[in-house]
Amino acid sequence: MKKKVGVAILGLGVVGGGTYRTLVDHREFYLKTQGVDISVECVLDRNLARLQELGVPEECIAGSIAEVVANPMVDIVIETIGGVGVAKDFVIMALQEGKSVVTANKEMISKCSHELERIAKRNACGLYYEASCVGGVPIIRTLLDGVQANHITEMMGIVNGTTNYILTKMDQDGQDYQTALKEAQRLGYAEFDPTNDVEGFDSTYKLSILSSMAFHTKVPYTKVYREGISKISACDIAIGKEFGYTLKLLVIGKNSEKGVEVRVHPTFIPSAHALASVNDAYNAVYLRGDALDDIMLYGKGAGAFPTASAVVSDVIYAATHSEIKYSTYKNTANADSATKFVTDFSSAYYVRLSVEDKAGTLAKISGIFAKYGVSIVKLSQKAREEVGEGETPRLPLIVITHKTTENRVKNALAKIDATDFAKVQAVIRVEE
Amino acid sequence: MKKKVGVAILGLGVVGGGTYRTLVDHREFYLKTQGVDISVECVLDRNLARLQELGVPEECIAGSIAEVVANPMVDIVIETIGGVGVAKDFVIMALQEGKSVVTANKEMISKCSHELERIAKRNACGLYYEASCVGGVPIIRTLLDGVQANHITEMMGIVNGTTNYILTKMDQDGQDYQTALKEAQRLGYAEFDPTNDVEGFDSTYKLSILSSMAFHTKVPYTKVYREGISKISACDIAIGKEFGYTLKLLVIGKNSEKGVEVRVHPTFIPSAHALASVNDAYNAVYLRGDALDDIMLYGKGAGAFPTASAVVSDVIYAATHSEIKYSTYKNTANADSATKFVTDFSSAYYVRLSVEDKAGTLAKISGIFAKYGVSIVKLSQKAREEVGEGETPRLPLIVITHKTTENRVKNALAKIDATDFAKVQAVIRVEE
Repeated sequence: MKKKVGVAILGLGVVGGGTYRTLVDHREFYLKTQGVDISVECVLDRNLARLQELGVPEECIAGSIAEVVANPMVDIVIETIGGVGVAKDFVIMALQEGKSVVTANKEMISKCSHELERIAKRNACGLYYEASCVGGVPIIRTLLDGVQANHITEMMGIVNGTTNYILTKMDQDGQDYQTALKEAQRLGYAEFDPTNDVEGFDSTYKLSILSSMAFHTKVPYTKVYREGISKISACDIAIGKEFGYTLKLLVIGKNSEKGVEVRVHPTFIPSAHALASVNDAYNAVYLRGDALDDIMLYGKGAGAFPTASAVVSDVIYAATHSEIKYSTYKNTANADSATKFVTDFSSAYYVRLSVEDKAGTLAKISGIFAKYGVSIVKLSQKAREEVGEGETPRLPLIVITHKTTENRVKNALAKIDATDFAKVQAVIRVEE
Repeated sequence: MKKKVGVAILGLGVVGGGTYRTLVDHREFYLKTQGVDISVECVLDRNLARLQELGVPEECIAGSIAEVVANPMVDIVIETIGGVGVAKDFVIMALQEGKSVVTANKEMISKCSHELERIAKRNACGLYYEASCVGGVPIIRTLLDGVQANHITEMMGIVNGTTNYILTKMDQDGQDYQTALKEAQRLGYAEFDPTNDVEGFDSTYKLSILSSMAFHTKVPYTKVYREGISKISACDIAIGKEFGYTLKLLVIGKNSEKGVEVRVHPTFIPSAHALASVNDAYNAVYLRGDALDDIMLYGKGAGAFPTASAVVSDVIYAATHSEIKYSTYKNTANADSATKFVTDFSSAYYVRLSVEDKAGTLAKISGIFAKYGVSIVKLSQKAREEVGEGETPRLPLIVITHKTTENRVKNALAKIDATDFAKVQAVIRVEE
């Protein structure tokens, strides 16, 4: 039995365009392999040149969102506009007309899934967002239908291609942040205003979506500790390498008896760790479950076609499954009050200090760390810094701590920074 | 709305036992997170000591398969017996009573899916087998519901933990095959009769299942070219390493205009390839799709709990989805006659010859390769072999070829082997 399904695409940018081409080019293939005939009934985009470039036939071009949602041939609406403005308005209009929605919009899902899912449920239609996280890698399908047998206790991932590209360049070519960013912009990997990526917002949205699913509780993005990569120095990447570490912008989610811990920040991981060799625009997510032990999913995290793969796989799923699976947790605007969030999280630390090259300085610094209960694994002095004439010579001192709490380290470093013999230059968390 | 689902487990060995404990220990968790109350209604196993060890209550122990399938409380039957004997009979009995079946049995699915699926369809019940391939890694869910948007053009994987453990030991510790096998047996990674694993049968079953799904056509295991690891010498692993290669028992599936190509054999891959660092009992599958580019799934490929994770995730899926997805291809006893299978496949080759240390030998060997159209990338002589007094000195000659066809290489090597100045010692395929 063949099934006929009509779709509309809102926004024919990079992902929307890739989705259009994938659907059109594979129509026969899906009919043959999935038993479903998916036709693009209409598209909505103001950029007519772009529509022409993609080869959209004129009769497929809708004049307004009202026209799209009123079209009885449209069963599924694909939203690839992005952001929380019109995208959200359009999605709500589609859901209210009983059309299932497939979206690649992490910001919207992260911020508004509670609202959108409520409308979807009320109208008995589905809301699918595999494409919102990690491009073509089916991480959401895996969390929903592949590893449900497990208490997921830990999640670590590289989910932003822009920052991973920049950090890979800084690591491999010794480039500084600004140079690597400019190259990423030139290649189209980074936007003109790169804030959303480099300051970790994009990763934060994705971690909020993925950890909500993995830990079966609403994790608002506002609960995610966030730190971007714009203050990372190439010298710290190089020094970390000497210690056997690779720097990545990681999303980290942990779920234990203490509560849920979610954070996005530059992190040193052992260079032998599977995530350390995830380079350039590749992404990966590592999960630990109480039954499955650990698994990792790896692939292209962005781009027109890898993301279209996720969009279209969701479309096929929606077209071939009548069951709609909503969040497996209480999807509210805020966190579930029963869920505790750990804010004073535990980590090991890499600290770079600039210290006076004088006898006794090391002892004083070690003493401060000890006083705050932070124990040190490694101390390493580097070659003297250049200072002005007459000034006390200074040198970089690298400290690697044992696993300790965030607060202890903060307090110790505040104390050190207040002395006249040492200044804190860089603090980077270390995951073993 | 909470749903109640009863399951029976047939065979409480390693995987069955892990499944029992997972279901019992997570019952509350599944009720809370998946909205389904899964109770183990009965188990079937003749080993009463094992049942006691697992803490199975007496009232849960069934006396016969007839009792299990007649039990109206049982909705889903889990088969963890293995093999194609009673396991298959029991599965058929369960399906005929309208019970959905979840199985970890790769041999049975590979050999009999056409028969079992027909019975399942006729009785409107499901047949799920995520656990048959790659333990806790949701590769089957991914192929069914995660990457369906793609023409999958290539699949490469390490899907057998026993052989990967042995090859890892041979690689890292320089052990010979027999020593590494004995250690694997001592640790319980290899069976007393290791044939099924080391000769590649297990991998062949898995590749038949995975490539059928990936390429949307029936790939009988008999169509898979198979070569095991028992003839691999530690010296070839060591020499390969010098050339930048790591040896793995790979399953390889390709789907192109020429047809479907499926093979299982020891393979040299570049040591920088993502699969090269999949060590010990870990497994991984690498997929290439026309939209998604490449992805890799990695995790524990065997063991009680990783495999139980897959079994139980299938149980939850069956319990929460009323839609049953059968094979997306024509599932018959034999290959679809419309599908071409490539047998003279293309590959690069590593060849170790033992050659006479005499002027002109190299030229003669190069000449034979050239005559058969095989071009050589690298030639490398090793230190002289020990020979008896008076015999012509011999030395190992390593030849790495360009990508060529299997038949050309076979013909060239047969010719070389028939000479008196060179003998073929080892032939290993190379994937770049």
